[in-house]
Amino acid sequence: MIAIDLEFQHWQWQYQISTTFVLFVILPFLYYVYCKYVTSSPNGYNKLESPVKITLAIPEEARPNWKGKRLYPKPRLIVENEPTKIQSYCPATGQDLGVFAATSRSDMDEMIAKAAKAQKAWANSSFIARRKLLKTLARYILENQEIIARVACRDSGKTKLDASMGEIMVTLEKINWIVAHGERCLRPSQRPGPSNFLLGFMKNAEVRYEPMGVVSAIISWNYPFHNLMGPILAALFTGNAIVVKCSENVVWSSMWYVEMCRTALKTLGIDEDLIQLCYCFPQDANYFSSHPGLNHLTFIGSQPIAQHVVANAAKQLTPCVVELGGKDSFIVLDDVKDLNAISSIALRGTFQSAGQNCIGIERVICLPKVYDELVQIFTTRVKNFRVGSDIDQSDEIDMGAMISDNRFHQLEELISDAVSKGARLIHGGKPYHHPNYPSGHYFEPTLLVDVDNTMKIFNQEVFGPILTMIKANSVDHAIELANGCDYGLGNSIFGSNFRQLSSLANQLKSGNVAINDFATFYVAQLPFGGVKKSGYGKFGGEEGLLGLCNAKSVVMDKPLLRMLGVATAIPPPIDYPIRDDKKAWGFVKSLNVAGYDGRVWAKIKAFTRLAKGGE
Amino acid sequence: MIAIDLEFQHWQWQYQISTTFVLFVILPFLYYVYCKYVTSSPNGYNKLESPVKITLAIPEEARPNWKGKRLYPKPRLIVENEPTKIQSYCPATGQDLGVFAATSRSDMDEMIAKAAKAQKAWANSSFIARRKLLKTLARYILENQEIIARVACRDSGKTKLDASMGEIMVTLEKINWIVAHGERCLRPSQRPGPSNFLLGFMKNAEVRYEPMGVVSAIISWNYPFHNLMGPILAALFTGNAIVVKCSENVVWSSMWYVEMCRTALKTLGIDEDLIQLCYCFPQDANYFSSHPGLNHLTFIGSQPIAQHVVANAAKQLTPCVVELGGKDSFIVLDDVKDLNAISSIALRGTFQSAGQNCIGIERVICLPKVYDELVQIFTTRVKNFRVGSDIDQSDEIDMGAMISDNRFHQLEELISDAVSKGARLIHGGKPYHHPNYPSGHYFEPTLLVDVDNTMKIFNQEVFGPILTMIKANSVDHAIELANGCDYGLGNSIFGSNFRQLSSLANQLKSGNVAINDFATFYVAQLPFGGVKKSGYGKFGGEEGLLGLCNAKSVVMDKPLLRMLGVATAIPPPIDYPIRDDKKAWGFVKSLNVAGYDGRVWAKIKAFTRLAKGGE
Repeated sequence: MIAIDLEFQHWQWQYQISTTFVLFVILPFLYYVYCKYVTSSPNGYNKLESPVKITLAIPEEARPNWKGKRLYPKPRLIVENEPTKIQSYCPATGQDLGVFAATSRSDMDEMIAKAAKAQKAWANSSFIARRKLLKTLARYILENQEIIARVACRDSGKTKLDASMGEIMVTLEKINWIVAHGERCLRPSQRPGPSNFLLGFMKNAEVRYEPMGVVSAIISWNYPFHNLMGPILAALFTGNAIVVKCSENVVWSSMWYVEMCRTALKTLGIDEDLIQLCYCFPQDANYFSSHPGLNHLTFIGSQPIAQHVVANAAKQLTPCVVELGGKDSFIVLDDVKDLNAISSIALRGTFQSAGQNCIGIERVICLPKVYDELVQIFTTRVKNFRVGSDIDQSDEIDMGAMISDNRFHQLEELISDAVSKGARLIHGGKPYHHPNYPSGHYFEPTLLVDVDNTMKIFNQEVFGPILTMIKANSVDHAIELANGCDYGLGNSIFGSNFRQLSSLANQLKSGNVAINDFATFYVAQLPFGGVKKSGYGKFGGEEGLLGLCNAKSVVMDKPLLRMLGVATAIPPPIDYPIRDDKKAWGFVKSLNVAGYDGRVWAKIKAFTRLAKGGE
Repeated sequence: MIAIDLEFQHWQWQYQISTTFVLFVILPFLYYVYCKYVTSSPNGYNKLESPVKITLAIPEEARPNWKGKRLYPKPRLIVENEPTKIQSYCPATGQDLGVFAATSRSDMDEMIAKAAKAQKAWANSSFIARRKLLKTLARYILENQEIIARVACRDSGKTKLDASMGEIMVTLEKINWIVAHGERCLRPSQRPGPSNFLLGFMKNAEVRYEPMGVVSAIISWNYPFHNLMGPILAALFTGNAIVVKCSENVVWSSMWYVEMCRTALKTLGIDEDLIQLCYCFPQDANYFSSHPGLNHLTFIGSQPIAQHVVANAAKQLTPCVVELGGKDSFIVLDDVKDLNAISSIALRGTFQSAGQNCIGIERVICLPKVYDELVQIFTTRVKNFRVGSDIDQSDEIDMGAMISDNRFHQLEELISDAVSKGARLIHGGKPYHHPNYPSGHYFEPTLLVDVDNTMKIFNQEVFGPILTMIKANSVDHAIELANGCDYGLGNSIFGSNFRQLSSLANQLKSGNVAINDFATFYVAQLPFGGVKKSGYGKFGGEEGLLGLCNAKSVVMDKPLLRMLGVATAIPPPIDYPIRDDKKAWGFVKSLNVAGYDGRVWAKIKAFTRLAKGGE
């Protein structure tokens, strides 16, 4: 999404700028502008908050060509006869990553208590200390991209490129953004105060943002690094402690990433108890989500579980942010310029992490003029996809494994339902038995075209490597199709007329829209969240930080009045005991007119009555 | 809270400015400043949005000396053998206000469908139309203050003065504030976009605020006018339709107030179906709160019911704002200047609406030096309180009836528990049998001093006319006491040192703090909401409006790039099919360093590698 195609439309010719030109002329210029900007910004260079180096043991399992034993015949999370144990394994190779004891209820109590204790001091930490922590993490991540990617790949089965873009880049952007803008977001916000001029003249009003205490996040497995780091970074920067419940699918990697964060805390002399990690099976998850020690809960996962979590949290009236799946559409209008470039974006948006993305492209909705050509392009490109694991081998790989094979049957059913109703299956459509990794969970990259809204796959979230194409008759029809499902997370819309696209963006019923791009709203640290069955509440950006704070509304006398010693008092006519009921009524009635009636004459009469004490 | 005491401390003498001086010199001056300001503001005068007159029949029951029959021996909401009927009556006099059929489930379906239909057009209404509607309502309210107060008094038993301040003034302020600031709050909000300079240079990021559709409010009975109007005003101004479920205690008045709003809509040619009112007993309330047609739910009520409501709403993943009770403290430091003036504020904050206020003062926490004097002042003043109804009579009345007598026993128990543990009951403490209104629900204004945190009344919300006094040993102890309960709605703190008070405000665990004043944070249209068991989410002010919107994150190319025809594209090294795995990895790794590493040398190396396509 970074390289640049430049079209000098007005000269009626196309000039494809070479990569070299971009990198040696345009980028250095941008960099110069950046430096100019950054060196004049307060966070550009500050020795007090410069990062420190942290050291951390690299897990054996993350090394290339690690010879871990493979679990046969079929790796599973559950350990036989040991209901409190969780089996971690690599979904790409089936290799054993260890067995871990699930967090018990008393362990959860202890973790939450420790976090609460650590938060007391952290609540008063300076923004300098918080930025130093974030910069320290960023430095470690930047210098250890390969390790971080390998750990994520080993536990989730994705490719290293997927990890680099979907785990590392977005996490670095989040850190960088918070370092640049976080303090400004959390500063007390001055408000206009009462609109009644009598009161407005006396009172200042502001909102102060304070840490909530111990916040929690129940997170999904699809981005074991980024989904974990996002809530941790936001929680720590806002002065909170955090208890994360990771998915039982990614216990092994989550432990190491949390270890990384706690090492940074330790190295900086901050109480490492600020970050706690737990993992368990559903029966104890209920205990966690209804725990009275949690002041906020962010849930990233699926709809049926969200309903349980929110109902559990209701027992303690814990506020929740609920981030669920989507059925995001990728709308291609027929005036697009470069179908091939757009197809590249669609493929990345569909097949990254084997389609296991909450904002993955689930529906390509295309107008008739370009539909067939786009089908043709996808057909050629999807057929060339190579599936496998690139942790240990040097072969070229486009798509990795899925986290588990327990939804393969469902995917096949969705496809066969669609085919039975007229869809054409161009490629894929079934599990893939990889010759080198017989216990890996692979599904073929799938291209399914001529999908329509009578098919289950139009409405149900796939969360897998299936590119579906839907033909729309008109622009209005495309919008109607995009809105015609229960989800409302994100949408992309491509075309040539920006005004039209911007106005169509308003018609799309979703929490996020990218115009002529895919998912950049997430990278841009805009508030991220869905509507309809995609959940509610926001994380990311300003709203994400403020959402982990108590917004305290504080009202006070204006400085001038304070200086003069003027204090608020109850006016005599309405002070207890009421001396004269009629006068008291007349007084407040006139106050209301004086304060709120727009007509001068009414105001003058009201003032006269006030002068007489309400008579 | 409006009149002004002026102290010229520095000259060592006190000059009490007379009311006449305030009203004839200071107020006209303020008014001049106001006019200067308003006439230059965009909403100051706009013919298009000037209010229109609406006409509405005045209910007989709201007239003075209405001769409605009294319900004997004891009025109740339930009608014998008619489980779907609700009996409305005046809690001050026991007079019959009529029997109403509870809204059935199918009626609810129909109301929500009608609201959804009406909202389609309203979503696209201009801010001019919305302001005109609000101004029309304000004009009617201003010109009919007496009627509106009488309707509220008749249905809730409060005094007209209580209605004037707690119902009418706060509603007018809300309207006026939204008219002045609402449009600005709802304008698209430009955001900094990605912090990565490569991406940041290309993308603009903004948040657009769109109506949610049909929102709902389940509201409490204590302010039958204001609690109803608040959600309606915010919903309509944000382009939503609203279905309100009022309390079964105030059906009669709610119907008339909704009629008032719908008349305004009709008069302005707006679909009156935008506002719907329902009322029912708890079994059908569950149906309402889990209705799939509602896009948002504001709940104002008590904690146990809130837990049910949120759990119900979880079935449809409907986002909720939860506003519950409080145990607000009124902290008096020992450097306060004018104890008598402060006692007036405390009395108003405690006894308004017979103490049935979510932000009512529940605990006066006082330092030793002023404690005894304050006890003395309260003793004299509370003993003089006169209880009754001022709708029909011309006697002087300080405090009205309570909504019901079903909590009287609980109040007496709280008092006797406290007395048994050492509190002193100075005045009141039991139900009051009013000679003129034998079926009215009156409780004596009560003064209970020497309360401490071992007593139930320290923790449990009273929601009645009981002033409790607690002695704190020190400032820290006062804060500890204030924070030592399960609630966290609002607090007031009084003293002479503003810096100290402002810093103490940070230590108070509550959603709102008024410094040297009571509850002005609510009037000031700051975001209003609690922490801990007082609920979560905000209404009021900017957050209140934004909370009824879908915040849509939209990202787009910068205008310059659009003009040049530059479009986002996937860089060749990472385009599918991946030509060289190692190069792809190297490319993204270098992109991360180029974008996020703060060190110039690392950046230069990264650019060099990018120029070589990742090698």
